[in-house]
Amino acid sequence: MQKYQLPSDRFMRAVLIGTGRIAQVLGGTLHARGIKFIGVHGRNKARAVDFALRLESQAIDDLKSVPRYADLYLLAVSDDALAEVSAQLGAVDGLVVHMSGTVPADALASDHKRIGVLYPLQTFSEHRAVQLNEVPIFIQAQSPDDLAILHRLASLLSQTVIPTHDEIRKQLHLSAVFACNFVNALYDMSAGLLESHGLNFNLLHPLIRETALKATSMSPTLAQTGPARRADMKAIAKHLTMLENNPREKTVYNVITAYLLEKYHNITL
Amino acid sequence: MQKYQLPSDRFMRAVLIGTGRIAQVLGGTLHARGIKFIGVHGRNKARAVDFALRLESQAIDDLKSVPRYADLYLLAVSDDALAEVSAQLGAVDGLVVHMSGTVPADALASDHKRIGVLYPLQTFSEHRAVQLNEVPIFIQAQSPDDLAILHRLASLLSQTVIPTHDEIRKQLHLSAVFACNFVNALYDMSAGLLESHGLNFNLLHPLIRETALKATSMSPTLAQTGPARRADMKAIAKHLTMLENNPREKTVYNVITAYLLEKYHNITL
Repeated sequence: MQKYQLPSDRFMRAVLIGTGRIAQVLGGTLHARGIKFIGVHGRNKARAVDFALRLESQAIDDLKSVPRYADLYLLAVSDDALAEVSAQLGAVDGLVVHMSGTVPADALASDHKRIGVLYPLQTFSEHRAVQLNEVPIFIQAQSPDDLAILHRLASLLSQTVIPTHDEIRKQLHLSAVFACNFVNALYDMSAGLLESHGLNFNLLHPLIRETALKATSMSPTLAQTGPARRADMKAIAKHLTMLENNPREKTVYNVITAYLLEKYHNITL
Repeated sequence: MQKYQLPSDRFMRAVLIGTGRIAQVLGGTLHARGIKFIGVHGRNKARAVDFALRLESQAIDDLKSVPRYADLYLLAVSDDALAEVSAQLGAVDGLVVHMSGTVPADALASDHKRIGVLYPLQTFSEHRAVQLNEVPIFIQAQSPDDLAILHRLASLLSQTVIPTHDEIRKQLHLSAVFACNFVNALYDMSAGLLESHGLNFNLLHPLIRETALKATSMSPTLAQTGPARRADMKAIAKHLTMLENNPREKTVYNVITAYLLEKYHNITL
């Protein structure tokens, strides 16, 4: 992907709405790359004041008082809050952009003249710095000019910027739920099983890192190992017995084992 | 853990049985650290000849012809083959060691005088080099002297060597199935979902790496994100609709979502 720079003769004035995990990472990085934030709004006012200070900006208590002359309004709020926040922001000329994986672009209020989406395919948690430069950023807009603006903006964050549309973005998000949220849930189950036997989860850290590196350097299909991969029904039966007091984990064991046995051995349980 | 060295006045003579993934990695590393392999046996004879050459050793066609005077017999064969290979090896004075996560130590033949286990908690695939030095290695033996020998041997491979017993080793292996084999199965489902929409799995690589790094630097419980973590029932309903033609993936989606909703929101589906 080509690396765009914002033209030096243009100062983009942005408003950031939201002070959560994504707002912190994206806002902080865009500020560091020269985007001027003329206002920060957040439900939690103390937090908005702190964050505005970090961005050399000012906190704005009321959405109605957000400057009307910004070039860009970044809505980094939860999916559930998007429609309401967008409606309260009301009529603006600037480009209004949300960052959700699931919400259609046109869920933004109809009195925004120009709308778009900037979706970074990454997981963000409090107190964890994330390097964005390898993270794919998917962008949408309604006009080629706005798409070009978002392309330049996203290129300040990452070297991988990809125009997309609602349907593809939803599919990306769903796949990410499996590869990230559900994977982390399995780490959690694994940690719980270990800890119930007085064992520390950090014993699995090298395995977890290698599993991720292996699947991303060969394909997951080639990387697959374990009892179900080799149809070791004796080991599977032993594991199910060991999980008798962990019904949730046992159910997960059963359904993923069924998936693997069908895929690699055409065995249907 | 203290780092042992094999005493310089002692040359441990080892026999390696097996030419698979674990045999390749452990045999290769032990050879590089000075262990003398006086014989290599494998079902696949051509492969055993190649591998023996790499270890400056010789291939032995028949288990009955394996030297009787070795200090150590390393059985790096599949769980299912262990009992038979061990029986065919027969009476030896040296320490006979298997590397399985699930098989009890005493599944080795009773005509071995000294038995043990050396279990590296890692995933091994063909054509992938693995650094062992951070991998926990769990050891078992029947006498303190043999445990000390295995401790010195394992310390040639890793800085983390931990004496254990059958029950704990089984629990470690079960947890590893969740954190590695099942995690990889989720990567695989995720790749399948993407590819069915013409999207490349490598778009998820940064997310997968960050998810693994995050869970191993904070706890998986703190690292959890996603629709189920925030009880976003609308997003969950949309995802289930999108998975209507993927019944296996839909089942997995349901059971892991149920686990997360119960854990974080006390919601029982």
